[in-house]
Amino acid sequence: MTLKANPGNYFEDFRLGVQIYHATPRTVTVGDVALYSSLYGTRFAVQSADTFAQKIGYPRSPIDDFLVFHIVFGKTVPDISLNAVANLGYAGCRFLKPVYPGDTLHAVSEVVGLKENSNHQTGVVYVHSKGFNQNNEQVLDYFRYVMVRKRDMDAEASAEHIPNLPKVVPVTQLGTACPIIDTRAYDFARAGSPYRWGDYEKGEKIDHVDGMTIEEAEHMIATRLYQNTARVHFNQLTEGQARFGRRLVYGGHIISLARALSFNGLANAFHVAAINGGRHVAPVFADATIFAWSEVLETAELPDRDDVGALRLRTIAAKDKPCTQFPLKAATEEYHPAAVLDLDYWVLLPK
Amino acid sequence: MTLKANPGNYFEDFRLGVQIYHATPRTVTVGDVALYSSLYGTRFAVQSADTFAQKIGYPRSPIDDFLVFHIVFGKTVPDISLNAVANLGYAGCRFLKPVYPGDTLHAVSEVVGLKENSNHQTGVVYVHSKGFNQNNEQVLDYFRYVMVRKRDMDAEASAEHIPNLPKVVPVTQLGTACPIIDTRAYDFARAGSPYRWGDYEKGEKIDHVDGMTIEEAEHMIATRLYQNTARVHFNQLTEGQARFGRRLVYGGHIISLARALSFNGLANAFHVAAINGGRHVAPVFADATIFAWSEVLETAELPDRDDVGALRLRTIAAKDKPCTQFPLKAATEEYHPAAVLDLDYWVLLPK
Amino acid sequence: MTLKANPGNYFEDFRLGVQIYHATPRTVTVGDVALYSSLYGTRFAVQSADTFAQKIGYPRSPIDDFLVFHIVFGKTVPDISLNAVANLGYAGCRFLKPVYPGDTLHAVSEVVGLKENSNHQTGVVYVHSKGFNQNNEQVLDYFRYVMVRKRDMDAEASAEHIPNLPKVVPVTQLGTACPIIDTRAYDFARAGSPYRWGDYEKGEKIDHVDGMTIEEAEHMIATRLYQNTARVHFNQLTEGQARFGRRLVYGGHIISLARALSFNGLANAFHVAAINGGRHVAPVFADATIFAWSEVLETAELPDRDDVGALRLRTIAAKDKPCTQFPLKAATEEYHPAAVLDLDYWVLLPK
Repeated sequence: MTLKANPGNYFEDFRLGVQIYHATPRTVTVGDVALYSSLYGTRFAVQSADTFAQKIGYPRSPIDDFLVFHIVFGKTVPDISLNAVANLGYAGCRFLKPVYPGDTLHAVSEVVGLKENSNHQTGVVYVHSKGFNQNNEQVLDYFRYVMVRKRDMDAEASAEHIPNLPKVVPVTQLGTACPIIDTRAYDFARAGSPYRWGDYEKGEKIDHVDGMTIEEAEHMIATRLYQNTARVHFNQLTEGQARFGRRLVYGGHIISLARALSFNGLANAFHVAAINGGRHVAPVFADATIFAWSEVLETAELPDRDDVGALRLRTIAAKDKPCTQFPLKAATEEYHPAAVLDLDYWVLLPK
Repeated sequence: MTLKANPGNYFEDFRLGVQIYHATPRTVTVGDVALYSSLYGTRFAVQSADTFAQKIGYPRSPIDDFLVFHIVFGKTVPDISLNAVANLGYAGCRFLKPVYPGDTLHAVSEVVGLKENSNHQTGVVYVHSKGFNQNNEQVLDYFRYVMVRKRDMDAEASAEHIPNLPKVVPVTQLGTACPIIDTRAYDFARAGSPYRWGDYEKGEKIDHVDGMTIEEAEHMIATRLYQNTARVHFNQLTEGQARFGRRLVYGGHIISLARALSFNGLANAFHVAAINGGRHVAPVFADATIFAWSEVLETAELPDRDDVGALRLRTIAAKDKPCTQFPLKAATEEYHPAAVLDLDYWVLLPK
Repeated sequence: MTLKANPGNYFEDFRLGVQIYHATPRTVTVGDVALYSSLYGTRFAVQSADTFAQKIGYPRSPIDDFLVFHIVFGKTVPDISLNAVANLGYAGCRFLKPVYPGDTLHAVSEVVGLKENSNHQTGVVYVHSKGFNQNNEQVLDYFRYVMVRKRDMDAEASAEHIPNLPKVVPVTQLGTACPIIDTRAYDFARAGSPYRWGDYEKGEKIDHVDGMTIEEAEHMIATRLYQNTARVHFNQLTEGQARFGRRLVYGGHIISLARALSFNGLANAFHVAAINGGRHVAPVFADATIFAWSEVLETAELPDRDDVGALRLRTIAAKDKPCTQFPLKAATEEYHPAAVLDLDYWVLLPK
């Protein structure tokens, strides 16, 4: 008789270069789309209306980019981060192909870096994760680094290797998941805003105004929808006795809330092309009200494309604090105490 | 740099006769149907089972009438009522064509009335709103009046114009969203009740018996599903400091709960053909338990149709009070303190 | 004027041999699948991914067996158990044919046993319930016994008849809802576990490790999804004054939670072929954290099939207690105070 429940991998179980084929493949459907919509209230026209998507060049509405991300990410959890202490960050995340209802996603990760911490109790694992559709076409590519517990303090860990992660996804790598858009057919009134790519400027700050309060049922329904099994989100009995005394809201839930809130000010930023980096700078628990604001870090043209342009955004989510004053930090300071998410990403807008 | 977040229109921004093309078009799917079902527990056979619908003459199960209403209504919110103080009522609401999974809805409103209040702080806006499917066929038509804040007390408002709203949708205008029904194929046992149109009498009162307690997660999930962005439903931080100290439940959520409860006593009232008027007579907050009862105001035959007949119903929803005593009011009195909804509408039943 | 709301049947209303055709037929869709997944976090690959299902011999992912059970069961509630005092148990439950998105389910029950209690206030009703798809092919078959209130203590009840319910579904009756599986195409890595049927032994105990806390919104959303109208689950006003002071969580919700948790240790037990018996040994309320463990009661080969084998499992769900110590009872003792569910069922795994 063997122990058949999955205890998850500990730091010393990871080996550089190992490929991990993750369970469980998952067919994404209009049912998932409806749930995602109901959990975040997202309103981007391309993802909301097949007719809108078809007019501009998609075969139908694609699945929301972050829903794709969360589903692929969720698959990696049982193998990568079941024994995580802290999710440190993402890097070089690119959306490579659109995903449509009916597509089936699966995921593979490669261990690309390992660094034991000096306390010998934890270490940082760097993985390169890939999401694929049913035709084995890659739809998503990203790096993640996460601090993982050791099973045994005395276990010898692999030699340290810290990979060179991309700081920013270069503009030349953006847009493969976005078909050529017929911008004349793009109905700005129906999309909810007159502002095109050219209307945004580097340094511009946008308060997304609205706040959304999180309920326990909501973040758990979302996180299970992604088949993310990280225990800290679901088990009040255990978490009640742990460091926060509360179930922790999945960081991706905050990303999706911030993205949905960002519609108010960025209604035509219909596609997330890449995530340069993301940090969950403070834990979030149910009953928090999430606000968000964005700064345009960069505006960029895509090589060989005149249909869409890219904005590099930094979106900050804050809890229990409206963002009229753009709470964040100065370059060398700590984060504002209300800040919970610092997300650096590329979006595409019609030109 | 322009302010890109939508501040919503204030009373002085509305001009008589102006047409407003609302964002965001939305494809309705079986995912929305499942969520709607799970939020209200609705059990009308026509909307629940494709086979039942097909036997009597529909191509498949149509989308629940109130789900159509809420989706169209939700689109109007960012333009009409983001700065509303109070939703005063509906009138002349007609369901014109059935909506099916896969259809994409969009909405247009015309400002048909304006009346500034004497305090110069608010005014009443009357809109005529229309919902359309992807073929530009109109599926919904209604009037709404809502009290909206002024941005600037001193701003000059448009000249007063109060439209003549229909008190009751005439019987001649009912039924275009209902195909001719094969009543011999209508299985009353499977539908859950033996009572046909002819079994109901004017003046009959029906207690719908059951009560449903509302959770914060539920009403927010529902309201986001409709892409309704009214802030009072979602933001506990701000609402906690406002007049009620609580998030307000979207009035349409109560309508849908009352309609679902009304199955118990009106199981064969499978189609809402029109809403004559509706008033949210008291605010509802999470943790309230909603009950409902109905009075048959009128029974009517439809001209040139002998498959279905119409009942004009008045459904009263009450909070935290069973409706065995039909709580309401006498004609000249105030509402019963438990009453939260007073809805006057036409339903169709097989003859 | 007749009383049109359904008061439910009381014990004296049941007659031996009577067939009851239940409302409401229901088309099951990918929307229901998404909701079910989001409520329980289920991860069995066959139900999660069309591609996985197709590779091994299904036309597409079948609907989760317990979702089928809950939908059929929900239909029986308005006729059988609206006036129930206690759900006593299930027996002889067999899944006969797979159900796919788009199928429409309906249900019929026959009264097969009656036994008035000596207090004359209640009696036990035994029903034989059947679920059918749109082609009138039977998909589900089970017995249930439930204690139902009498309307009138003095009413004369039918003569006592206690049916002989099957203790265990024989192995010869398992597997009709499972097509012949191409086990070479079954990808164990993608399914999440290397353990086949032959890796499990009689007497083996498996702790499913994880705990899931229940929210009011979640169990009500689930129970309404099944169109289950039992009042104790929804109405805090009335239940607050009743014996527990709380809304009661639908027992089937616990079954589905336990089944989803059991993935961790039984990832390849992709099909529930039969339920031998089930007892809800203690009530569950929101805020409870559910854990589960299983014992392999029996391993069995299916006659004439070498693709899959059967395990007879006893799964115990416990509230607010991790199952590392396998809380249950000795044969003659009371249940452990944490135990809430004792489920005896057959699952199939690839050989």
